[in-house]
Parts: sequence; structure tokens; C-alpha cells
Amino acid sequence: MSETDYGTKKLFEEKVFKDPIHRYIHVKDQVIWDLIKTKEFQRLRRIKQLGTLYLSFHTAEHSRFGHSLGVYEIVRRIIDESFRGREAWNDADRPLALCAALLHDLGHGPFSHSFEKIFDTDHEAFTQAIITGDTEVNEVLSRVSPTFPQEVAEVINKTHENKLVISMISSQIDADRMDYLQRDAYFTGVSYGKFDMERILRLMRPTKDEVLIKESGMHAVENFIMSRYQMYWQIYFHPVSRGGEVLLNNTLKRAKELYQDGYEFERFPTDFIPFFEGTMTIEQYVDLDEAVVLYYLKEWIKERDPILSDLARRFINRDLFKFLPFDGSIITMNELRELFEEAGINPNYYFVSESFSDLPYDYDRPGSNRQPIHLLQRNGKIREISSQSMVIQSITGINRQDYKLYFPKELIYNIEDDAIRERIISILNELN
Amino acid sequence: MSETDYGTKKLFEEKVFKDPIHRYIHVKDQVIWDLIKTKEFQRLRRIKQLGTLYLSFHTAEHSRFGHSLGVYEIVRRIIDESFRGREAWNDADRPLALCAALLHDLGHGPFSHSFEKIFDTDHEAFTQAIITGDTEVNEVLSRVSPTFPQEVAEVINKTHENKLVISMISSQIDADRMDYLQRDAYFTGVSYGKFDMERILRLMRPTKDEVLIKESGMHAVENFIMSRYQMYWQIYFHPVSRGGEVLLNNTLKRAKELYQDGYEFERFPTDFIPFFEGTMTIEQYVDLDEAVVLYYLKEWIKERDPILSDLARRFINRDLFKFLPFDGSIITMNELRELFEEAGINPNYYFVSESFSDLPYDYDRPGSNRQPIHLLQRNGKIREISSQSMVIQSITGINRQDYKLYFPKELIYNIEDDAIRERIISILNELN
Amino acid sequence: MSETDYGTKKLFEEKVFKDPIHRYIHVKDQVIWDLIKTKEFQRLRRIKQLGTLYLSFHTAEHSRFGHSLGVYEIVRRIIDESFRGREAWNDADRPLALCAALLHDLGHGPFSHSFEKIFDTDHEAFTQAIITGDTEVNEVLSRVSPTFPQEVAEVINKTHENKLVISMISSQIDADRMDYLQRDAYFTGVSYGKFDMERILRLMRPTKDEVLIKESGMHAVENFIMSRYQMYWQIYFHPVSRGGEVLLNNTLKRAKELYQDGYEFERFPTDFIPFFEGTMTIEQYVDLDEAVVLYYLKEWIKERDPILSDLARRFINRDLFKFLPFDGSIITMNELRELFEEAGINPNYYFVSESFSDLPYDYDRPGSNRQPIHLLQRNGKIREISSQSMVIQSITGINRQDYKLYFPKELIYNIEDDAIRERIISILNELN
Amino acid sequence: MSETDYGTKKLFEEKVFKDPIHRYIHVKDQVIWDLIKTKEFQRLRRIKQLGTLYLSFHTAEHSRFGHSLGVYEIVRRIIDESFRGREAWNDADRPLALCAALLHDLGHGPFSHSFEKIFDTDHEAFTQAIITGDTEVNEVLSRVSPTFPQEVAEVINKTHENKLVISMISSQIDADRMDYLQRDAYFTGVSYGKFDMERILRLMRPTKDEVLIKESGMHAVENFIMSRYQMYWQIYFHPVSRGGEVLLNNTLKRAKELYQDGYEFERFPTDFIPFFEGTMTIEQYVDLDEAVVLYYLKEWIKERDPILSDLARRFINRDLFKFLPFDGSIITMNELRELFEEAGINPNYYFVSESFSDLPYDYDRPGSNRQPIHLLQRNGKIREISSQSMVIQSITGINRQDYKLYFPKELIYNIEDDAIRERIISILNELN
Repeated sequence: MSETDYGTKKLFEEKVFKDPIHRYIHVKDQVIWDLIKTKEFQRLRRIKQLGTLYLSFHTAEHSRFGHSLGVYEIVRRIIDESFRGREAWNDADRPLALCAALLHDLGHGPFSHSFEKIFDTDHEAFTQAIITGDTEVNEVLSRVSPTFPQEVAEVINKTHENKLVISMISSQIDADRMDYLQRDAYFTGVSYGKFDMERILRLMRPTKDEVLIKESGMHAVENFIMSRYQMYWQIYFHPVSRGGEVLLNNTLKRAKELYQDGYEFERFPTDFIPFFEGTMTIEQYVDLDEAVVLYYLKEWIKERDPILSDLARRFINRDLFKFLPFDGSIITMNELRELFEEAGINPNYYFVSESFSDLPYDYDRPGSNRQPIHLLQRNGKIREISSQSMVIQSITGINRQDYKLYFPKELIYNIEDDAIRERIISILNELN
Repeated sequence: MSETDYGTKKLFEEKVFKDPIHRYIHVKDQVIWDLIKTKEFQRLRRIKQLGTLYLSFHTAEHSRFGHSLGVYEIVRRIIDESFRGREAWNDADRPLALCAALLHDLGHGPFSHSFEKIFDTDHEAFTQAIITGDTEVNEVLSRVSPTFPQEVAEVINKTHENKLVISMISSQIDADRMDYLQRDAYFTGVSYGKFDMERILRLMRPTKDEVLIKESGMHAVENFIMSRYQMYWQIYFHPVSRGGEVLLNNTLKRAKELYQDGYEFERFPTDFIPFFEGTMTIEQYVDLDEAVVLYYLKEWIKERDPILSDLARRFINRDLFKFLPFDGSIITMNELRELFEEAGINPNYYFVSESFSDLPYDYDRPGSNRQPIHLLQRNGKIREISSQSMVIQSITGINRQDYKLYFPKELIYNIEDDAIRERIISILNELN
Repeated sequence: MSETDYGTKKLFEEKVFKDPIHRYIHVKDQVIWDLIKTKEFQRLRRIKQLGTLYLSFHTAEHSRFGHSLGVYEIVRRIIDESFRGREAWNDADRPLALCAALLHDLGHGPFSHSFEKIFDTDHEAFTQAIITGDTEVNEVLSRVSPTFPQEVAEVINKTHENKLVISMISSQIDADRMDYLQRDAYFTGVSYGKFDMERILRLMRPTKDEVLIKESGMHAVENFIMSRYQMYWQIYFHPVSRGGEVLLNNTLKRAKELYQDGYEFERFPTDFIPFFEGTMTIEQYVDLDEAVVLYYLKEWIKERDPILSDLARRFINRDLFKFLPFDGSIITMNELRELFEEAGINPNYYFVSESFSDLPYDYDRPGSNRQPIHLLQRNGKIREISSQSMVIQSITGINRQDYKLYFPKELIYNIEDDAIRERIISILNELN
Repeated sequence: MSETDYGTKKLFEEKVFKDPIHRYIHVKDQVIWDLIKTKEFQRLRRIKQLGTLYLSFHTAEHSRFGHSLGVYEIVRRIIDESFRGREAWNDADRPLALCAALLHDLGHGPFSHSFEKIFDTDHEAFTQAIITGDTEVNEVLSRVSPTFPQEVAEVINKTHENKLVISMISSQIDADRMDYLQRDAYFTGVSYGKFDMERILRLMRPTKDEVLIKESGMHAVENFIMSRYQMYWQIYFHPVSRGGEVLLNNTLKRAKELYQDGYEFERFPTDFIPFFEGTMTIEQYVDLDEAVVLYYLKEWIKERDPILSDLARRFINRDLFKFLPFDGSIITMNELRELFEEAGINPNYYFVSESFSDLPYDYDRPGSNRQPIHLLQRNGKIREISSQSMVIQSITGINRQDYKLYFPKELIYNIEDDAIRERIISILNELN
């Protein structure tokens, strides 16, 4: 078998994965099957899709493994059911699209958001590094062709010249979003993330540069955009959800700062050292999954440092900070930080201001950096969707922002100095 | 507030948990809310409901935390919607029933089946120990009354004198089964575990000794029994599923035996020592969750011992043994074990015969030890269900058994001695 | 039993109806059970919920009977689960609310929209007439009290002084809409009409004048409003759907005009005469259901009049007119009408311009006539929803309008005069 | 285009029907599209799938139109997704299989069971007659080839030599059953009719004589058989459901007997005469749909004959007979008939004994007349399913029978002769 053949080689018998979102995920290609078996891909079983969100939605325990299979399955269906046989689609790009879909989240770390924030890592850079580095995934991809790993990485990084394949995986209506909205809705049990994916898939049409949607699918796309909006504000930005992340951030930050300050750990955090020092290799990165993080968090409960111990315990036993709505005022925040400090509560770890913002949809304009959704009309013309849909127009380019303050309520009530305590409570009451 | 009051004290505002199976789980009672917040209950988030089954059904990643809430919610609905106001129900037993429902799985260890098998622990004994020992859960329960923890433990152990409350949680149609069948079906994505729980709940009637079902619910019960049967053979006993367990069993067994043989671990397995030695305390038991087990499994990949390292790697990267159907013949098994040994493959770790069996339903007879399902007829008479339902009668008391052999296929093909290799292959071919 | 008792009398045993939307519909009250058994309520089984829409969505065959039960069930749950025990709710209003909910659609005629348009009837007036007239429904309601029928009619007509009860059944987030969106989505099989009704119900709070929604339900309400918007444009205004209605309108119009012109029917349309003449009694109205209309439509296929026969055949055999998008221009329309006439095609029956418009949400302002949706904030303040929700604000008060032209395509291609035919085709092509 | 081409001619653009069971029904073939447009197929919109069952399950209002499309869609998927490319499948049989699937229920009359019983018609004979007679359907089928209509009829009649195609549509696990179980469950709202059709379809394999199921699908088939069993006893044989049919039977029987006795109808039942006289043509048969039957039932309420008027009113207003369980004893029945007669209640119309029986599965044996379900083993051997499945074995060949007595309860309480009344009541009480 020549190298080129491997990319299109079929399995002797199709493999299927039972999946609640897609009923079955169908694997017919040898390269996909081999990628799934690599240790780097299997690792995604130990990275939760929604990080700390299971602390507010208790069934949100699903991993990035299932999501990655789901994105692959959607791209496979777009190709096999909607694109195949159409002029603008070159079936030689199938392996590239399928592999990029499957691997697009490969570099996510444990509790990704917290991890990136505290250790200054970038999951996109690590996705690229794993694909092009000395890994099992790279070994499989290289069987397709020596340049294939690099090509897959470029599609995921959106630097590949094939804009059509990129838009299947990364655009404002891509396979990634279509899978995660449905999957996250299913596993949290909410009714928001639903839209008519079957219809959208059926109406997708390839062009040289992007995926178009036939105009008869406009309402299905509206529904998709609104589902996404709902999922952001109801699930991903749910203030209790963010409370788990706030706690994890501060625990990791404390551990890192203690290490940098020369603190002597009871249980030396071997696996974290490269991250504390910023020297991690690909291998060390791939090794650090959520089992490791949870293992150390539990160990840290037993540490002498009262802040590290308390924060770790709070996270493990879900003793979250309380949150209050907030207008983002720096003055208020600074005043509260000072009062906390006076009361002997370290505001660096026990007082957090979080802001969330989301831009549900945007068209292409200076500074937007988004690939707009284009509709294909019956007469062959192409129209940007916000020019056709009142609902989408109404939210286009509008950034919604929200602020919350997080702190442990009971610590405040325990402040001994009456004046400080009352002052803090009075400020907080005004916020509420 | 007197002690007695605490058991019936209501929260200022009802709390709800979004849940895909029950839409919402409603918590109105202070004692339930306080139990959920204990560290022992929060630990159930780190114990998967279906252990290693996620290696065959990739979305079976849900924890015992959600299941425990679900069993609680079903019992709450039985009481609040079906029993309340009926003569045979004493509402003073409500806290007892709710707490026992919530805590019934508290003592499950990480990857429970493997763990119990290798370390000879018993999750039921640990459930009792946690409830009656020096724990946060015990502290909360004791607020109801000094004897309350013991009573809750007795309900879970089926030794309490209140047979009605026991039958709500442990019988052949109990809240436990009703939750897990639906939950496991939902999270694996299969269509088997469905039945009309609403109808069954609505038709439940309390008597002094047990929960009866009105006879108009007979078909719904049939459906429930068949759903259970299907879930056992399609999901819980799925041979690929069991393959993950086989591997984990052998990995833990190898580690334990190495320790007992004085092997020097690169990374000393501190957390496992009490289990290797059989001296674990409640605290050590509660500390050992799946994050810890996974952490060590990953560490063990780096161990010098080739068997431990290989087995751990296989489990983490899902490189499962192959399985073949098998008739249970000891002669065949012994012959294969000997051949493996001759070929230099240790059959203690690389050759496993597994048998599964299930008795879908049984009535009460010598040796059966099962509480039968009783129907309440319109004329007030009580009938055991297998005397009324052809379908249930047909499977009553019939134990179905199945055997599988597990071994690593590629090791066999790599045996250098042609005669041994061919002999093994020939025996295996006959099995197939 | 005194008159007053009948309104609150409970059935000996609760009755349930299996329902796909609400799982079960629970009837505990004698008056509701008796109303369901009346012939006027049973007649709703012979009136489709979505009229001619089954010609485009083939499974939209469900009747107003199920919808009426559904609205009743939602109101029952609002009362029994959310309102009961709250200060602003007077449980003496329960029978009024339940009966008004159950009967709110009682006066709908067969294929309601067409019927009202052609025969100038008004389903709201007939609902009132049936409730207050000499009917079985009136007989049952009168058992509650002599003035009770009138009160129920006033709630449905929105003239009753109890604004709270009115708002449960008729507002921008009422039980009527909550049932039909979900029901119509279920029976058409689309994914649009879904929203978290459980959450909305749980967060409803009564005041003297209206139902409020706690602010934590804002996103669920957004989702509800968007679901409604989607259902309007995807289902109710689906241009193929409206094609069936256009055809039925014209068939009924032709029959009426023929009668008025003294045409001698082969099969005298006895049941239609009071409607042709505008003299129908309540009894005649109640007698005219969709079985009667379909019976006559099939008879009319055999009539001598070619237009009546052709239109009736088209409707029965689903040979719909074609539609084209259209800008609403009167000039274009008049030109086309003239060309049709010249070609010998009667534009009164074979050329139809339809406009659809919908205002998804509006607040209370001069000319709006809508009861706004009010949110109840944690601090007790009440806020109109469009002031809080960006998404709702963006569509508030904006009327979306659409036009379509309907005509039989093949008639145009059969026009013998080349010039007329080409001129018509050229105008139509420009529209497309 | 030659005649042969028409059978395989594709539409310019695929048409889809939104369907709740199959998401979308896909029509690519010109012949299928043309068949759907015929008046005989459109007539199926006016024949309910479950006849009078909507009187007990109020949402069971779906028609045979959707079911027919569903059976077609399943057969299309079996061919296009499971069979195509396999040796035993000849793609030239595709049009035959698709057309037979679509048309298999074409000859069903209005309220089919009652109709056949009273007027001694046979829907299978009429299906054949419509397909081979002078109809629009025949005209379309003849375009494929002059013998094609006859071939389609033979497949539906199971006399065609192509046993494989017959088994796709008529066997113990055919497309017909797979659609109606799911569809009837969906529209009644029950949870019983569910099974993993996707898995069964995927594991279907063609042989010369039948469809096999790969043995790994055994549990899915068990689930299907049990779903069917549940649907029979929970839905189709639901005693309230059968009560509607009993009433309709007797109403039609009364009308027929009155006509035969020379009774003068107020409203002459023109459309029924050929059925009263047994002289109906295909055209008359096709014309008689449920709208016509309902129209006459409503007219008959106004007839002078008290029995016809009462029975028609009961059916239209759902004033059903009461039912009691019964052991089938002829002695009891005769005694009750005599007592009814003595009391002046005509037992021919007001006293009915109904028996229901179902054989859930049978293998091929003398007198069985059923095509068994065969499993295809990994080693290529074929096994009848009851030899492999304990659950199926347990119900194989076992006929379950049930009896019910139907009568109007209130008539009995109104019997003036105390002795007769008490005697009847006493016998009925014993039955209960």
C-alpha cells in the first residue's frame, strides 16, 4: 500500500459507537480508527467537556472524547450526505477534514479554562504541538503523507489555504458548535440547545471558500444561533457554574505562588512543577489530566498552608463562594478589597470579580474577525444572514456583558470588627 | 428547635437540581440538603455509576452522585404523590425513607466491582460504617435523633423492622432500579431502559409490609422487568464492557501481589497500602476515589515490572483483551492456561475466564431470597405477579448464564514456538 | 349538595388521560369530568387543531380536543403547584380558571380560518354563545351557580374583572400558547416549539392583576418567545401550509356564490344553507364539523360547475396551487389579474395574494393592546421583560410581514395565447 | 424514455416529508412521488391508523397516510443502507419493494375492523383490486411495465416468487411492524413501542429467500418482539379502546339490518347502499372514507329508530358501554342475553362478548403459517431466534386470550323489574 492509499483505506467492517446525540458514530476509515486508539486521543476521556460545570449541573460529567467523536461524525455526514458529488467538493480533502474534526480539541488541558489562566498555556498551541510533535497521533497521521500532520494542524489553526474545510470545523455554524450545543444540553438535561441539525446539514452547500446554507434553512439557522445564545447565558455563564472555576483558579494560583515562594509541600507536587516553572514538554502536558489535578487537590487539603488547604477543600467538597451581581465599578471593588484586607481576609484568594461577555453573531467587518454565515438564494445569489433575518440582525455585533463578585459569605459574617463587617455588608447589600 | 424537629424541618426555599431523568430533583428538607453537602456524599461525584463501562459505551461517564439524587427523588415522589394520606403510610417515616434512599450507595468504592474483588471489601459494609462512624454524614443524621443513623443503616441493610420502607429502596421493583435503568440507558444512549415509571409510581400502594402495585399496572411492570433484562445483557454484561473490568482486576491484582512479594515501586503507592494490607480505616476508604486510582494506574505505566506496566497502559489507553464465547469447560481452560504458560505468557494476568449470570425475576421460595412483586386486585386480593403475567412467568426463576474468555490476541500471534501457537489458535477457533 | 359544592366536588377516583405533551392529564374535579363528556366538548375531536396544515405537515392531524385538555392541565398545575398557598391567589377561583381553560376554544368551527373568512363567523362569539346558550356545557356549568356560565364566558372574552385568571389563559405567556407550541411541534415532528415549561411554571407568581415570572426565569421566557416566533414562520405561515387554506377558502367561496346565484346543486348542501344565508343557530353551528365539510367537498367534485368541481378535487386530492414570493405591489397584482382574465382563467378563484404578519411580542403602549410580560425581581420590583432582555427588546413591537402569490402553475402553461402566457410567465419570473 | 426507465427515474431534486418517527422521509424516485399524488393514496389521509382507538387514547388521530410513508421509508433505508452492494440483493427489485411498501395498506376501509366485520369486506382484496383496477395508482404503476401492477399486488399478497422482497414487508420483523409500533406509540404518547430500529436495520442481511438479522442483533429483536407484545395488550386490546369498536359495529349492523328490513331512513344513506347490498365497486369503495361514515353517524342520531339513534349518539358523543372481565362461558352469556331480552333491552345491540387473542411470535411448524425470524451467526450458520433467546422461546407459540363483556351500565340500573335487575347485577358482580 502506498502512503497515499492509507488516507482513504477502509476498514474491513465499519465500526460504530453508540452515541446519544448522533445515535451512532460511524467509522469506516482506517486512519480515523487508528487515531482513536492513540493514547493522546484516549486521554480526552479524562478531560471533562465542561470543566468545573458539573458542580452546578451535576450530570455535566461528559468528556471531550465523546464531543470529538461527535464533531468527526457531523463532518463525515456533511461530506458523505451533503457534499459528495457536488462540483465544489473535492473528495480528496475528506481525510483532511475528518482528521481535523476528530483532533480539533486534542490540546485541551484538565479544567481547561482555569489551567490556561493560571499556567498561561494555550490549548490551540498544544493541539498543534501534539499533532506535529513526537506522538502516537503524529505517527498515524504521517502514514497518510509526511506533510499531512502539518496540514491537519493548519486546518485547526485556520491557516490552511483550504477555506472550505476550515469553515466546516471553525465558523459561526460549524460542526464543533453543532455538536457541543446538543451534547451539553443533553448531558445537563436542559431543553435549550436544540435545533434542527438534520435540516441544516441537508441544506449545506460547498463553495470554494466556505459552506453556504440554502436560504430555506434560514429559520433553522436562526434557531441554532438562539440556541447558542441560550446555552451561553443559561449554562456556560451560569453564575454558580463560574463559582467552581473561580475556586479552582485560586487554588491553582495559591499552589503556584507557594511553590514560587519556596513553600515546602508535605506532598511534593512533582507533576505540577513543570507548570509552576513554565517548562512543560508535550509529554508532560499530555500526562496531566483531570485525575492528576483532582488527586493533588485532595492531597492539598492536608497541606499546612491554611489558604491552600481551605481552597482545595472547598473545591473538592463543593463549598463554593457566594456570588452577587455587580456593575463592574473599580471603585467599589477596590474599597471591598481594602476592607477584606483590613479584616484579615486575603482578597487575592477570597474576593474575585468575574466578567463574562458573549457576542452571539457578527458579520465580517473591521475588527470582527468572524466568518459570517452566508445563505444561498434560489437565484444563486449569496446573502449574509443578518441582512435576511430580523432576529439575527437584532443581535448582530452586540456584545452582552455581565459581572459577578465572588466571596465566601460566612467569612464575612465571622469578621470580628463590627465596623468593617457592617461596612462590607452594607456595600454588598447595595449591589444586590 | 428540638432534635425531633430537625428531621422534618423545611428549607426556607425549595432547592432544585436539573436532572435529565427526573427533569428536576426537588429538595425541601433541611436534613437532605445538609447530607448532600457532606464530603462523603460529594465524594460520589468521583465514583462512576458504571465503573469501567465507559470503555465500551463512551458516554457512560455519569457518577453515583446523580443516581443517588435520583433514587431520593423517586422515593420522595412515592411518598408525596402516592402514599401521603393513605392509611398504611405513616408520614413520620418520611425522613427515614428519604435519607436511606439518598445514602444507599454511599459505600461504593472506585470502580466498585474490581475493587471489591481484589481487595475483598464490601460496599454494603462500608455504607453502614460511614453512616454510623465518625463522619460528616453521621453528624447530620444524628441531629435527627441519636438512633437515627443506625436506623438508616438498618433500612439499607434490610434489617430494619419497617419492611415497607425497605421495599421502597430494595426490592425487585424499587426506586434504586427504577432510577438506574433509566439513567444508565440515558447516558449510554440506548433505547432499552425505558418503561412507564409515571404509571408505576401512580399505582403504588403502601401496606404494612411492602409496596403493592395495582393490577392495572401489570403491563407497566412487565415492561420494567424486560427493560431490566435487556439492560443486563445489552449493557452491563456487554462482553466489551467486561473486558475493561477484567483488565482493571488484573492490574490491581498485579500491584497487590508485587507489594506482597516485596517489589520496590518507583512511586510508592501510599494510598493503596492499607488496601494491599487489608487494614483500611473509614477515612482511608473515603479518600480513595477514582481520581486516585487513575492517578496510580498512570504512574504504574512507568514501573519496571513489565506486567504491571503493560496492564496499566492497556487500561489507560484502552488496549483491551479480546474475548471469545466459551462453554465454561474447565478442561479447555486448563489446557489453554498450560499452553500460555509454556509460551511464556503468564495466564494469571493474561488469560481470564469470566462468567456472568442474571436471574431477571424470582418469587419467594426456599433459596430465592427475593421479595416478590405483588399486585393489588380490584377486589382487594393480592397476587404474586408471575401468577398473572405470562411474560414474567416465562422468565421467573430462570438463571441465564454466559461465559467469555479474555486474552490479548496479538500476544498469541507473537508466540515464537509454532506448535504452541498453532495449538492455541486451533482451540480458540473451535470456541468461536 | 348545595350549588356551591358542585364546583369543588372531587371525583371518587382521579381520572387520567395519557397525553404525549403532559405525560398524563389529571382530572380530579367533577365539573371538569362532566364538561368533557358533553357533546359540545366531544365535538372538538372533529376539529383539527391546525386546520388544513396536515396538507403540508402530514402528521399534523391532531384535534382541538387534546389541546383543550392540555390548556386545562397547565392551568391546573399553575394553581396546584405554583399558586396554592400564596397570598394573592384565592383558591375559590380554581373552578373558574379550570373551566375557562378547558372551554376556551369551544367555538372553533371546522377549518376555522377558512370558515370564519368565508362565512363571516367569529369563533370567540360562538364560544360565548355555546357557553351561555341552551347546551349541555351550559347545563353543567350552571350547576356550579346560575351566574357561573357567564363568568366563564367573561374570562374567555377577557372582560371579567379577575385579571389574574384572565392572564393565566390569555396573555403573551399563557397556558394556551404553552400548550399549542409544544403540541403542534410534537405532532408536526419539528424541533422548534420546545422551551422549559417546567421552569416557567415553577417561577410563576400570582398578583392581583396578572401572573408574574421570577426574574431567574428570564432566559426561559426568551426561549418561549423565540419558540413561538419560530413556530409562526416555520409552521403556521409555511407557504405550502397556507396553500391548502387558500384552496379551501376559494372552494367555500365558490359554493356560497353559486348558491347565492341560484345554481342548482346535484347534491343539495343542506347543512351549509344556514351558513350561505348567514342564519345559523348555535345548534347548526355545533353540528358543522370537519367530517361534514369533507363530506361535501367530496360531493362537490361531482358537481357540474367546473370551478367548484376542480377546486374541491384539488383540495381533496392535494393538488395545491403553486406559490411565489411577492412584494405586495397592487400594480403587479392587478396586471396579473387582468392577464388571467384575458386568458380565460377566473382570477377570483385561481389567483390569490396572501399576506401574513406576526408581532412576536409587544409591551403595553398606545395601540398595542397586549398585556406585557412582567418579571419579578429579587428585590420585589416588577420589570417589563423587554427592558431586561436584549433578545426580546430586539423584536419588541416589530411586525414582520410576508406576501405570497398562489395560482395553479399548469393552467398558465396551458394558456393558448402565446403573448398572454409569455407575459404572465415573465412577470412571475421577475418575482422569483 | 423507455418504460423500464420510469421505474428507476430520479426526481430532479429529492423531496422530503417531515416525520416525527423517521425525522425525514426521503423521496428520490419519480414513481414514488407520482404514487403519493394519486387520489387513492391521498385518501389514506382520511383513514385513521387506529380506527376508533382515539376514543380511549385521545391523541391517536394519525392516519394511514403517514404510516404508509413510514413503511416506504424503512424499506428504502434497508435497501439503500443495508442491502445495496451485497450479493444476494438485486437492485432491479428496488422499485418493486418500494412500491409494495408504500401501497401495502391501500385497501383499508374507514374504521377498518368494524367495516370488514359488518360488510364482509377484505382490505387485502381491495388493496389488490385498487392496484390492478382502473385507478390512478394503476396508471402510475403501469408506466413501469404492463405487468408491474400485478407484481406489486403479488408482493403485498405474499404470492410473488421473490420471497426476499415479501419478507421485507410482511414477516414477523418487517417494515410494516417496525413503523406502526413506533408510530402508534408516538401518537398515543406511551413508552412501550420503542426498540432500537437503527441497530436492527444495520444488521439486516439479504438472502435469496428472506431477510436475516446478524446474531449480534438478537437482543434488539427481543426488544422489538416485547414492544409488539406490550403494544397489543396495552394499546390495541385496551378494553376501553375495544369499547368504541363494539359500539361502531353495532351501529353499522343496526343500520344495515334496518335497510334490509325495509326501514325508511329520514336521510337516505346513498353512500352506504352498495355496502348494505354487497355490490360495491372499487370506485364506491375508494369513495367511502371516515368523513363519510362520521357524517352518516351524525345524521343517524336524528333517525326515528331508537336503537340506531341511541347507538350513533353514543359513538359520536363517546358514551361508551361499560366492560367487565369474563371467562368466555357460553352458559353465562346465554343467561345474560335472556335476562336482557326479558328486561326489554335488545341483546343483539346492547350486549356484546368480545374476545381478543394474540400470538406474539411463532416459528415455522404445521399450522403456524408464520415466517420465523432467523439469525445469521458469525460462522455463517442460520438459527431460528427462539432457539437462541430464552425470552422469545418463553412466548413462542403461546396464544394469549382475553374476554370482555360490553353493555350499557345505566340501562341495567334502569330496569324496572326488580328480580331481573338484581339477577343481572348479581351475575355481573360475580364476573368482576
